[in-house]
Amino acid sequence: MERERTIKEYLDKIEKGEMKPYELEKQIDSNLATEIRRRYIEDKTGIKLENVGKWTLDFNKIINKNAENTIGIVQIPIGYIMIKVDGDYAKGDFPVFLATTEGKLIAGINRGASALNNSFGVKTKIIKSGMTRSIILEFNSLDDMQKIIDYINSDEGFSFLKEKFKESSKRLNLKDIEIYTDGHYLFIRYTAETAAAMGMNMITIASNYATNKLIDKLKEKGIEVEFISESGNLCADKKPSAINLIEGRGISIVASAVVKKDILEKYFKANAKEIEKLNYAKNYIGSSIAGSLAHNAHIANVLSAIFIAYGQDVAQIVDSSIGIDDVRAIDNGDLFISVYLPSLEIGTYGGGTSIETAKELLKATGVYGEGDELGITKYKFAEIIASAVLAGELNLLAAEASKELASSHASLKRY
Amino acid sequence: MERERTIKEYLDKIEKGEMKPYELEKQIDSNLATEIRRRYIEDKTGIKLENVGKWTLDFNKIINKNAENTIGIVQIPIGYIMIKVDGDYAKGDFPVFLATTEGKLIAGINRGASALNNSFGVKTKIIKSGMTRSIILEFNSLDDMQKIIDYINSDEGFSFLKEKFKESSKRLNLKDIEIYTDGHYLFIRYTAETAAAMGMNMITIASNYATNKLIDKLKEKGIEVEFISESGNLCADKKPSAINLIEGRGISIVASAVVKKDILEKYFKANAKEIEKLNYAKNYIGSSIAGSLAHNAHIANVLSAIFIAYGQDVAQIVDSSIGIDDVRAIDNGDLFISVYLPSLEIGTYGGGTSIETAKELLKATGVYGEGDELGITKYKFAEIIASAVLAGELNLLAAEASKELASSHASLKRY
Amino acid sequence: MERERTIKEYLDKIEKGEMKPYELEKQIDSNLATEIRRRYIEDKTGIKLENVGKWTLDFNKIINKNAENTIGIVQIPIGYIMIKVDGDYAKGDFPVFLATTEGKLIAGINRGASALNNSFGVKTKIIKSGMTRSIILEFNSLDDMQKIIDYINSDEGFSFLKEKFKESSKRLNLKDIEIYTDGHYLFIRYTAETAAAMGMNMITIASNYATNKLIDKLKEKGIEVEFISESGNLCADKKPSAINLIEGRGISIVASAVVKKDILEKYFKANAKEIEKLNYAKNYIGSSIAGSLAHNAHIANVLSAIFIAYGQDVAQIVDSSIGIDDVRAIDNGDLFISVYLPSLEIGTYGGGTSIETAKELLKATGVYGEGDELGITKYKFAEIIASAVLAGELNLLAAEASKELASSHASLKRY
Amino acid sequence: MERERTIKEYLDKIEKGEMKPYELEKQIDSNLATEIRRRYIEDKTGIKLENVGKWTLDFNKIINKNAENTIGIVQIPIGYIMIKVDGDYAKGDFPVFLATTEGKLIAGINRGASALNNSFGVKTKIIKSGMTRSIILEFNSLDDMQKIIDYINSDEGFSFLKEKFKESSKRLNLKDIEIYTDGHYLFIRYTAETAAAMGMNMITIASNYATNKLIDKLKEKGIEVEFISESGNLCADKKPSAINLIEGRGISIVASAVVKKDILEKYFKANAKEIEKLNYAKNYIGSSIAGSLAHNAHIANVLSAIFIAYGQDVAQIVDSSIGIDDVRAIDNGDLFISVYLPSLEIGTYGGGTSIETAKELLKATGVYGEGDELGITKYKFAEIIASAVLAGELNLLAAEASKELASSHASLKRY
Repeated sequence: MERERTIKEYLDKIEKGEMKPYELEKQIDSNLATEIRRRYIEDKTGIKLENVGKWTLDFNKIINKNAENTIGIVQIPIGYIMIKVDGDYAKGDFPVFLATTEGKLIAGINRGASALNNSFGVKTKIIKSGMTRSIILEFNSLDDMQKIIDYINSDEGFSFLKEKFKESSKRLNLKDIEIYTDGHYLFIRYTAETAAAMGMNMITIASNYATNKLIDKLKEKGIEVEFISESGNLCADKKPSAINLIEGRGISIVASAVVKKDILEKYFKANAKEIEKLNYAKNYIGSSIAGSLAHNAHIANVLSAIFIAYGQDVAQIVDSSIGIDDVRAIDNGDLFISVYLPSLEIGTYGGGTSIETAKELLKATGVYGEGDELGITKYKFAEIIASAVLAGELNLLAAEASKELASSHASLKRY
Repeated sequence: MERERTIKEYLDKIEKGEMKPYELEKQIDSNLATEIRRRYIEDKTGIKLENVGKWTLDFNKIINKNAENTIGIVQIPIGYIMIKVDGDYAKGDFPVFLATTEGKLIAGINRGASALNNSFGVKTKIIKSGMTRSIILEFNSLDDMQKIIDYINSDEGFSFLKEKFKESSKRLNLKDIEIYTDGHYLFIRYTAETAAAMGMNMITIASNYATNKLIDKLKEKGIEVEFISESGNLCADKKPSAINLIEGRGISIVASAVVKKDILEKYFKANAKEIEKLNYAKNYIGSSIAGSLAHNAHIANVLSAIFIAYGQDVAQIVDSSIGIDDVRAIDNGDLFISVYLPSLEIGTYGGGTSIETAKELLKATGVYGEGDELGITKYKFAEIIASAVLAGELNLLAAEASKELASSHASLKRY
Repeated sequence: MERERTIKEYLDKIEKGEMKPYELEKQIDSNLATEIRRRYIEDKTGIKLENVGKWTLDFNKIINKNAENTIGIVQIPIGYIMIKVDGDYAKGDFPVFLATTEGKLIAGINRGASALNNSFGVKTKIIKSGMTRSIILEFNSLDDMQKIIDYINSDEGFSFLKEKFKESSKRLNLKDIEIYTDGHYLFIRYTAETAAAMGMNMITIASNYATNKLIDKLKEKGIEVEFISESGNLCADKKPSAINLIEGRGISIVASAVVKKDILEKYFKANAKEIEKLNYAKNYIGSSIAGSLAHNAHIANVLSAIFIAYGQDVAQIVDSSIGIDDVRAIDNGDLFISVYLPSLEIGTYGGGTSIETAKELLKATGVYGEGDELGITKYKFAEIIASAVLAGELNLLAAEASKELASSHASLKRY
Repeated sequence: MERERTIKEYLDKIEKGEMKPYELEKQIDSNLATEIRRRYIEDKTGIKLENVGKWTLDFNKIINKNAENTIGIVQIPIGYIMIKVDGDYAKGDFPVFLATTEGKLIAGINRGASALNNSFGVKTKIIKSGMTRSIILEFNSLDDMQKIIDYINSDEGFSFLKEKFKESSKRLNLKDIEIYTDGHYLFIRYTAETAAAMGMNMITIASNYATNKLIDKLKEKGIEVEFISESGNLCADKKPSAINLIEGRGISIVASAVVKKDILEKYFKANAKEIEKLNYAKNYIGSSIAGSLAHNAHIANVLSAIFIAYGQDVAQIVDSSIGIDDVRAIDNGDLFISVYLPSLEIGTYGGGTSIETAKELLKATGVYGEGDELGITKYKFAEIIASAVLAGELNLLAAEASKELASSHASLKRY
């Protein structure tokens, strides 16, 4: 009653223009504010938002941290698969939760995983790790530019910036700095370890802080520069860029497996040579003619389902899904398959992982990162994800390869 | 009681290995099956999945259509913004719902939208439309290859395939066929209108069907080919590929706007020249050195929030987020800004749009596509999305540009 | 005597600043002018240009048409190979002349060609043909943009432009028009057949002419546009661009061959499986990680030697060398190899082909294009070039593959 | 007489199949052999190769070092321009020689150079230097892979390889090693300083040598690997690849200049704002839609003319011509222009520089590299080349921008 009266009162204020919907939190609890905004939208559009309006999250923990001007929640179905991983951080069988609305996706990954689990599981190896942020400076002359580069590349300069990163956040460990220039602007690409977090916020704050200190330091040396942007697209965040493929971003990881001949037959009615050929025609020739940065079947599908489930930054599947499949038939009829993910951008703490559903799933997989200063849970999570990706790739390649047989009885010969 | 007993009974069967979790639906309702699997995971992991376990969706409508082996749902907060669109299909003010866990994203897009709404709103124009699928054939000789190409490019060949597409689905209208070859494989890239649906399933079935008929037809002409794959990565689905940038996929659309000088000052404390310069340094020079297919600030952020909210195929933000910003300061101090989205892959019916929360939001925005054989709702949705993307780009570019001033008082001169 | 006196006289004038070196042709013959400039450089630098100064060309035919401010010639050694071609235009054995300074290049291509000739020769097929030029317009509004696109895409619009191309040059046949826009600028990409010529000059003049007429026509319709540039980088000329890979430019051609098992052994001490594997590791995996538009071994080497010899536009090897190798071991031990050249930009008449050495070599190969209105010699030349490219690729891949054996006796097994 | 008799005698042997043309050097002088082969081709084709047959080079110095199976020479006209350079190695006015058959190219670069020279000349700065070669290894397991990476990245491993490079050639200084893997193959990308030489041969021999020693060393540690290829396309040599754009190859250099307002008017009838706009529309928007690695007007034209003249490896213009233009109008009406060349692959000694014409021109420009162990002449040459490239870009952009005015009197306004 009381609650309903309050809602009507605020709806009235909004209607009269005395208040903007996003200002409700100034006076009331976020859960109530969210409900009022939902009702406002319902009134305006004449559409009932019943399912959107049923949530168990506490919006007081969400507002400004994860979302604003909220009206409710999206519900996305979660399924799961089990995967056997033999990595440096993840060892054993793990449930992987997948949130998706694409029918057969979970079933397919599950089949791929079963084929892997019933062969030898998946081996993984992390090649590199470090989140990146690039900033832009404008300088006055090429001579100044040279001095700036020399300073940053000097032991003194690197130590200075490493220290500034540490001042910005104790969990940040600056590992590398790369400098790019076109003769007009200077781009500094910082790479840092970010503990269990994916780390974009952390590194953005730190690179701003450190860059401003660098600018002061340069001014002392008589060099004036202008701070053009805190993000120069050489990061490169959420954009498909060769720099992430080549230099890596987040975690660079490989996963590989051997799948037994009889398993291929049983699960996919396919044999190794056909899958090898399909990978060649599709991921090599097809992707190459397409001018693609990605030589794989559907890594983005697997990652998007994982990212949504576990509260990852979903826009980062753009970079994270760049990957290369390698498939070779072995003489004994088994199949070798590997996948390379150069820029898997994930975290087990912070950001969307604080949403209750995500937190529950991270815990259930054994990778929730609270208190993990070394990032061990993140590496473990990366190994599990890469293994699930391999399962997804195996399944789709094998499925497409076996279709080949069904649809064609041609006995082809060349010339 | 009864329900709890049933749950225990099945948990017991699963535990004993008499049944696999995904087989539950063979005997019981999906909502119950989902609950049992959730409980099974809780038992196995020792983690309570309380929030994951609270849903209003009906899993009987979801299983096999949107997800399998389900255990519950992910909840993702939804906020909204209002945007003023002046397109050919969308005219007026529209709510755009955004599901995200990235703090300040909705607030930022909202600010960008307000700046646009308080200037002249957003103009949009659809350049092209058509979903694509590419298949792979293997041929016996270059002479055969020539004959196949000639046939497909002939009026007869095109009509034949167009007819086969129509046979596969009345809602499909084959518009274009492009052929690629490396001298070993032949790739056929079909482009078709798919009504209100995004259309991947539809076109995959149709291209399989039509290709098999084509193979029969070729056999009649004495040409044998092998059907290597139903997807040749020249589609290109969910991979960042130049072919989508150049040829387009889904909907190719531009949105542009002029933002008033005083609005720039009021909302962003920025002026047009600074924003122009920032766009130049970041989206031109930065993206170019990065070897990027995307010359924009963060289109992927806006699209991922929209795609999750409205039940779109989230993995498709990989392609859909490829886009180019164009920003020019006008002499009177106003700002011109436009964005080009060559491959916006969306639908207003089918796939994830049948999830109740998505359906409610589509309806609230006025773009739910049931019964829309012409795809009008899809075009309208595209115009609204492109406008929201423009709002997001404006906001981030303006924010980064104004930061420039705050952080640097340098009076730079060149030489 | 007399000549020497004249030379001294002009050198004196130049020295005194009464005349600029490039103005000599206003008063004297180009051969003499070239000699005077050479002497001038010798005097200035103190370096004797003896070899540069020995030529048989007639500079009167060269000045302004091929070069300006000339001082002599570069001499580049020419070697040759013989290649057996089974194309639609070239049938038989052809000498291919190669001008290079890279040792072993000719010998290597020669070995590759011998292996092909002693197997079955090379099959070729032209997929597409047409030179392209893109221009840039700026428009006032998206509505205007739409009208422009509609007009150009209409039968009337296309006919109008086709006619204008024909008015510009009888040898030009406009085949296709593609339109691109970012919402601010409009790019029109014209594709036309250009007879025996490579055609850049011809199409540039025509696209300027036709575009200006189009602008007039649009003005009649009340649409004002600005002509921003006669080249919009979507051509794309002399820049490595995906658009040429995907849409083609100049001649798009494939060449393929089967190489016999014993020939592989005899010429390269290699077998088919090793070469297949090398191609896979290098041209698929290596090129993909490199973010490369080119999946081949060294097409640029072969093309640069051919382009220099035959008076082609050498800067166009940048686009022409984009190509994809496809290599498969056949069950009987033979090797299938093909190469795809999407944008081979060549001519047999005009431009550098008028240089006497080039003309002689074109004639010796049987492809000099004077009077060839249909471009037959150009197609023939393309088939011969593609065959030589295949020889070069075969040789290098086989050489690298056999090296593998020499350097490693490891008996590797996976896992 | 005698000579003519010898020629006839050998022609007869070749005709009878007693000898292959390329075997002539086994018995006779290369100049004579070249003449005989030329005559042989004349006989076979019925075409007189008169100009091809006039040379001053000594083929005895060329055979096997620069060319094989020779028949004569190509003559290519050389022109020159003068450029004022203010670099770290090149200071003053330098003649740049250009060998081309493209009319107006030299004249255009000359105009650009004059505009620069009459403003403030060109400033240059070398950012990086080092030739690269990548090799491919195949390993047995991801654990082995990890051990190999760890060893190479260790101080011991790097020192070992650096030493092996030094053993291979005293002039080689290994600077950096980057490792890439897809989970199946391991790519090692070596970067080394190569003194005055461009260095491909040197580094290929060294990377082969060092890699074989590495393999032995790994075997001692119980790790077996297979040496798959001496070039893994991550070098990347003569292929347009993002890795060279991002990591650099050869010399990474920037050149920039300010061009005075009145000079722009005088030389190009253009103003700074128009040129800025043209660069934006063409090199940013156009190149971006084209999916291009090169954001410039025609760097390849300038480089190809320079490479041919100076005996550089012409196929390397494919990589060397990747570059980015930056153009900004300054408030006072002057123009700022810069160009970034990330992978300029040149040498002043070795390879084609030993051809007499090239040697003469290198000397005349003051950059012949004999005895230059530090590579000073190469750096100087790079600065001069980058300056000439800037002249070429300035000229073409200004020319296209001013054309805009001529062709259109439209008074455009946005909206």
